[in-house]
Amino acid sequence: MSTQQEQLVRCLRTTDSDFEAEFARLRHWSAETDNAIEQRVADILADVQKRGDAAVLEYTERFDGLKAASMQALELHPQELEDAFKTLPAKQQDALQFATERIRRYHEAQMEACGRSWQYRDEDGTLLGQKVTPLDRVGVYVPGGKAAYPSSVLMNVVPAHVAGVKDIVMVVPTPRGEKNALVLAAAHVAGVTRGYAIGGAQAVGALAYGTQHIAPVDKITGPGNAYVASAKRRVFGTVGIDMIAGPSEILVVADGSTNPEWVAMDLFSQAEHDELAQSILLCPDAAYIEQVLGHLERLLPAMPRAEIIRKSLTGRGALIQTRSMEEACEISNRIAPEHLEIASQEASRWEPLLKHAGAIFIGAYTSESLGDYCAGPNHVLPTSGTARFSNPLGVYDFTKRSSLIEVSADGAQKLGVVAAELAYGEGLQAHAHSAELRLKK
Amino acid sequence: MSTQQEQLVRCLRTTDSDFEAEFARLRHWSAETDNAIEQRVADILADVQKRGDAAVLEYTERFDGLKAASMQALELHPQELEDAFKTLPAKQQDALQFATERIRRYHEAQMEACGRSWQYRDEDGTLLGQKVTPLDRVGVYVPGGKAAYPSSVLMNVVPAHVAGVKDIVMVVPTPRGEKNALVLAAAHVAGVTRGYAIGGAQAVGALAYGTQHIAPVDKITGPGNAYVASAKRRVFGTVGIDMIAGPSEILVVADGSTNPEWVAMDLFSQAEHDELAQSILLCPDAAYIEQVLGHLERLLPAMPRAEIIRKSLTGRGALIQTRSMEEACEISNRIAPEHLEIASQEASRWEPLLKHAGAIFIGAYTSESLGDYCAGPNHVLPTSGTARFSNPLGVYDFTKRSSLIEVSADGAQKLGVVAAELAYGEGLQAHAHSAELRLKK
Repeated sequence: MSTQQEQLVRCLRTTDSDFEAEFARLRHWSAETDNAIEQRVADILADVQKRGDAAVLEYTERFDGLKAASMQALELHPQELEDAFKTLPAKQQDALQFATERIRRYHEAQMEACGRSWQYRDEDGTLLGQKVTPLDRVGVYVPGGKAAYPSSVLMNVVPAHVAGVKDIVMVVPTPRGEKNALVLAAAHVAGVTRGYAIGGAQAVGALAYGTQHIAPVDKITGPGNAYVASAKRRVFGTVGIDMIAGPSEILVVADGSTNPEWVAMDLFSQAEHDELAQSILLCPDAAYIEQVLGHLERLLPAMPRAEIIRKSLTGRGALIQTRSMEEACEISNRIAPEHLEIASQEASRWEPLLKHAGAIFIGAYTSESLGDYCAGPNHVLPTSGTARFSNPLGVYDFTKRSSLIEVSADGAQKLGVVAAELAYGEGLQAHAHSAELRLKK
Repeated sequence: MSTQQEQLVRCLRTTDSDFEAEFARLRHWSAETDNAIEQRVADILADVQKRGDAAVLEYTERFDGLKAASMQALELHPQELEDAFKTLPAKQQDALQFATERIRRYHEAQMEACGRSWQYRDEDGTLLGQKVTPLDRVGVYVPGGKAAYPSSVLMNVVPAHVAGVKDIVMVVPTPRGEKNALVLAAAHVAGVTRGYAIGGAQAVGALAYGTQHIAPVDKITGPGNAYVASAKRRVFGTVGIDMIAGPSEILVVADGSTNPEWVAMDLFSQAEHDELAQSILLCPDAAYIEQVLGHLERLLPAMPRAEIIRKSLTGRGALIQTRSMEEACEISNRIAPEHLEIASQEASRWEPLLKHAGAIFIGAYTSESLGDYCAGPNHVLPTSGTARFSNPLGVYDFTKRSSLIEVSADGAQKLGVVAAELAYGEGLQAHAHSAELRLKK
């Protein structure tokens, strides 16, 4: 199965002798950094750190073709966001509000489940625990221009709000002054507290270091192009960042029971994002794979983004026939996909076998696109196999923990002896003395 | 107060006209990267990725002066770790076991409080939640040579264990073959599953990429020198990392009620770590500050690490007289210290005002050194102001979350309409179709 040049998508079998080599090729994606971009970004950040507003205004004019006399002129006022919302058709207004409510409810449940302070007391009265507090101020980067995603605004701003962040600053580039009404409306509905019509590395720098007009934030989240990604990487440490996302991915584990047309469209829904997006089907049933392939070929011409989808599927997609559903789950774990659909009538049988994924979409009715917009869970998810060790964006990204330790006078007697013993063992005498001074003679 | 060249530690008052300038100087710490180190590390990592074991063996011989015929020869077998434990004096054995038990209990409580899977069902039967699963395999870096910290072994390995990580791989350089018995014993007690006597950027590369003999891990935690820090930064994305730590810091907020000798020793206990460590006292009581200063000067000559302490205090320490305890808390929040002691009889009055800190040590008996070794909470804490947005090391660093979404047939009808509306608004038609295919006609 190696000479299908004209085929829309690579078809593999795990029983093929060259499967491991093909699989390695499929998984390969390199986040190679472009040295020219890296250097440009380093220069822009240094300039913003040094000159502040003046530098940001200059780069905004140069890169966005937008001339402004002052940073004030680039502020997006709450009234402007609200006005944008009011201009939308009622159906869009309702959809934004419905989605926001679902996302809020989910993240409130998340806060309840894992975002609370906790503590306990030892027998000797020593108190131990952690207090969870919101970040003071976060910046949300929203891409502008052709790829404007109001859903990203909701997915970044709502959890920050639920976490208790007081000050949520949105930056969004507006090339030549073009503003996207849906994005501004989403900012209004989600509760952005302040907005600026700036973007690129200069916006990331302004948020991280602060300028004369913009107060520095504690963390920057949200997607962006290569310049934004590079800038976020560089300011990490000065501020927190969410993650550096790779291309989007979907993996469908199917037992053949879900309508194959649905699965075909789900694979498209990932492929249409961009040419590097990855769509993979794992299934033990060869006939079913043929059916899905048939739907892919039949449906493609009518898709408005057919060319992007074709390049994505041909370049990075695959339909893989496995020996069994168990093997499909194992391969899925090796990939650790961003989005994982279990298209099976026995979803609860397979779900426990699936260890690594950003989000798991269970059963035929759970299309990934529902999760992208309004099911409630966050659509900002770990990509490129990073689901092995990282989390969906959540309220835990907008809070932080401080350990609490209150040792009682009694507790200090017991702990002090042990601490001193270990401190001497490490050659840290002041540590030992500090514990021993609290011992009652 | 600007000409105290001979004074042990800078004394400031918030009422001084130049306080803000002095304070800015005090806070300044630059994690500037050394280009030569960066390049060396990039080369080493590329070489390890390409040649595997052979490269690691070569660098181990070159940098650690340790020649080994194969990677097998550098393995630290469980029996060797256990033997190291058995050779220790009984007091050290007991101290290690006591500390391990306390740390385990704390992290079990943490797992219970914030590390569990959760889910709920909507009115329409849709299931939403997150499942929490342990990482498969983590690598723990342990520095070797002069600064060997068995407590670091406990603080990294125990939470990984409690989180359910099956495979915990320790790497520790052993310059010229010298092994530290306390470190090996700590690895035994804490439950390391595999160990290698390798270190530096080559060990980080081996853990991240894997070699012929070493399987790749999912995350690397633990402290190290500039080479290790640079290597961790570079492999981030391929694997997870914990954090890049800056110099250690203590900040004491005191109302004058705690024995000033205790506070002086607590300041020493941070300063003795290294010359860049930072010790700061904030207190509204000028007389008390004088007393602490007196103890610092009196106690210093007897400290084995007096020279390091002196340089740390002179270079980066400060005793700051504030207008009030409230102002002390505000300044502490601006610093967001790694370790924060509340040396006050009214600790519960001030604790709620303290928003940003890695760990908060409450009351006179809670010396920071108890927390370093055996109180239970983790001693790996955010430094350099990163407590504004990040956490102590915890079980959440050794688990990851997958969102769960199971939309019912009914739920898909309501969600599908909204998702399609928003998807059309973003120009993503396959997303819209994917939702609409599930709508019942």
